[in-house]
Amino acid sequence: MLYHLFEYLREQGTHFAGIGLMHYISVRGILGGITALLIALLAGKKIIAFLQKKQIGEEIRDLGLEGQLAKKGTPTMGGVIIILSVLIPVLLFGDLTNPNTQLLIFTTVWLGFLGGLDDYIKVFKHHKDGLNGKFKILGQVILGLVVGLSLCYNEGLAFREGTAVKSSEAAVKTVQDPATSTEVFESNEIMTTIPFVKNHEFHYSWLSPFKGKADDIFTKILYILVIIFIITGCSNGANLTDGMDGLAAGVSAIVGAALGGLAYVSGHVVYADYFDIMYIENSGDIAVYMMALLGALMGFLWYNSYPAQIFMGDTGSLTLGGIIGVCAVLIRKELLLPILCGIFLVESLSVIIQRYYFKYTKKKYGAGRRVFRMSPLHHHFQRNDIEALIKKPQQAHPEAKIVMRFYIVSMVLAVLAIITLKIR
Amino acid sequence: MLYHLFEYLREQGTHFAGIGLMHYISVRGILGGITALLIALLAGKKIIAFLQKKQIGEEIRDLGLEGQLAKKGTPTMGGVIIILSVLIPVLLFGDLTNPNTQLLIFTTVWLGFLGGLDDYIKVFKHHKDGLNGKFKILGQVILGLVVGLSLCYNEGLAFREGTAVKSSEAAVKTVQDPATSTEVFESNEIMTTIPFVKNHEFHYSWLSPFKGKADDIFTKILYILVIIFIITGCSNGANLTDGMDGLAAGVSAIVGAALGGLAYVSGHVVYADYFDIMYIENSGDIAVYMMALLGALMGFLWYNSYPAQIFMGDTGSLTLGGIIGVCAVLIRKELLLPILCGIFLVESLSVIIQRYYFKYTKKKYGAGRRVFRMSPLHHHFQRNDIEALIKKPQQAHPEAKIVMRFYIVSMVLAVLAIITLKIR
Repeated sequence: MLYHLFEYLREQGTHFAGIGLMHYISVRGILGGITALLIALLAGKKIIAFLQKKQIGEEIRDLGLEGQLAKKGTPTMGGVIIILSVLIPVLLFGDLTNPNTQLLIFTTVWLGFLGGLDDYIKVFKHHKDGLNGKFKILGQVILGLVVGLSLCYNEGLAFREGTAVKSSEAAVKTVQDPATSTEVFESNEIMTTIPFVKNHEFHYSWLSPFKGKADDIFTKILYILVIIFIITGCSNGANLTDGMDGLAAGVSAIVGAALGGLAYVSGHVVYADYFDIMYIENSGDIAVYMMALLGALMGFLWYNSYPAQIFMGDTGSLTLGGIIGVCAVLIRKELLLPILCGIFLVESLSVIIQRYYFKYTKKKYGAGRRVFRMSPLHHHFQRNDIEALIKKPQQAHPEAKIVMRFYIVSMVLAVLAIITLKIR
Repeated sequence: MLYHLFEYLREQGTHFAGIGLMHYISVRGILGGITALLIALLAGKKIIAFLQKKQIGEEIRDLGLEGQLAKKGTPTMGGVIIILSVLIPVLLFGDLTNPNTQLLIFTTVWLGFLGGLDDYIKVFKHHKDGLNGKFKILGQVILGLVVGLSLCYNEGLAFREGTAVKSSEAAVKTVQDPATSTEVFESNEIMTTIPFVKNHEFHYSWLSPFKGKADDIFTKILYILVIIFIITGCSNGANLTDGMDGLAAGVSAIVGAALGGLAYVSGHVVYADYFDIMYIENSGDIAVYMMALLGALMGFLWYNSYPAQIFMGDTGSLTLGGIIGVCAVLIRKELLLPILCGIFLVESLSVIIQRYYFKYTKKKYGAGRRVFRMSPLHHHFQRNDIEALIKKPQQAHPEAKIVMRFYIVSMVLAVLAIITLKIR
């Protein structure tokens, strides 16, 4: 809202030092990030004390893992800290008329509510499983529908290409971008970014066997289904990843930083041209959002890193995964997610493989067998290390080390995902 | 050397897929980073086993801190892993004719040797204090002299400005840059970057009270003294910071990433112009070096993060600090270091303040008093947490958390340092 106030004053002809700075995405992003960090640090402490006082302490799943019991009494629902620390700076410094910002705010509030309900049922109603899994999926599917329909029908989210990536087939009309006086081509094509092909463009209509109006409908339905799958996958992936101190928050911060950087470049005609990345009008403001998210996550990690004083709970993990999925979809990088969010993917796969292999072997051999010592994957390594622990006692508490290694793998995946944009 | 082979083949007219790619700094940087990471991960394991076998285990300073004794038996001199993992990729993918690369290689080998000697004396000769402090300082001063004299007299390191930052007083001759066909101005002015002033330029000659030849000599001596101070300060700062698992390596990685990014932009006429950062010819190759350093540090952290399987020792910390100092000097960002390397600075100051306050109070009151519970600063927080530990036993092992918080502060400082380049 500060952004809109400054813009209004500027339009009215008011001039004071710095009034023009608020116009820049970089300035708003940095202000948003710093504000989010400060809110998370300052409010975080009070929220933790409050949650602790309310005796909110999620029952830790008893894994028989060393150090597990020490976690009893640590409050959960810390996702509230992240959500507040993102929303306040975005309301202050974001462009609230930008449909990208609106969708991201909706994502945060919607999934925050869904995850919060889940945590509430677990903690206060003492139902161990929380919200029925079907409701969670339903909530994520509704979000996917909202995002998908917006992308198909909201003109403000229409795809535009900069001069550098002219592709005559996609060009519907030519507009003069007033800010940069570059010619941009507005397009209603549904396309995204994939590596290895010319221009890195992928048109969903290529998969359609139809022509004319049927093609348009088929493409839109396909696109919306992909979006629903991506958002549901990301949200649940983050949820499964959230099982060690600082793990989900740190991995999300790394993924979020990569997406924020891509959004910043995507939203600027000249930079997008230079770095040879699809230009998407208005997407710069997504970078402001992601900077706020980064600040919030850094502040949250201050308390959440090993040994954690607070857990994010589903309030945090469902929301984080959702924001990441929606952000990727909005900047047309959803097909990079299997690499970029490789940790979420592998954690989810480990659970699926473990479950189905157990069922399959139970049917075949009478007794279920396991692929991993434990799923999700991070607990597999923890179990592993406990055996090493007996031999080498100085390697106690390997949780912190597993988390750091997941961070390192995440960073490598982020670099690889960005490299694929350079390969053709 | 692969770089030179490819360039030679290209000049000879040999063409095969990808031969031209090696020309790009981004490609070489990413290849260098990935190679460094792989070397650190693969060779690291063997080097750790070798060092362990040789019974190299630095005597841990007995601080009476909880968990301290568990560290006995952890080998040191792990800096060898970092040094090897940096040098091999740089020899493969770096431009070895580039004076910046040459200076960075010299820094790494020279300080690696100095730190290695120190560790060797500590571990094998069982002299607790290692190499005499005077020799360490002497080594760092010699390095500073070499870097300072190179910057003053090596034409390959001459400062050049892109068209965007024409400042007539500094322009000596105009050259056409063949790669970008942009006009660049060669300059023999000794200048650096500072925030808040016009163009962010600071000319060391502004401090000179002389004119003509005396001015030139005074400025060069002043500049070399500043460089010596910066390099000695950075190297010792990293050395003091290295006292917790993963602390020095992680902080150096964050600082190195920021410097690498600045080097990349500084070395490209068009990007430097766009991001409004001083253009320095040939400095792009510094980014290749820093990417290799980042990869090496990520690989080292795989083993060095809490609980550490290896310590870097002075072999690592003196070298890391030196590389950071030299890199900052080469891209004319040395005056940003008090912010960017704020952790090194604060750790050093905590030691100095502690020592002098103790001496002062001992003289005045008969008994020495302390400002911090313990110095360097990171142990002050550890002590603090041990007292909390008695009240809240679930907060055991706060070392990992202190380290994470130092990382977060480091990242914020890196962002602040880069912001200062936008303030005028």
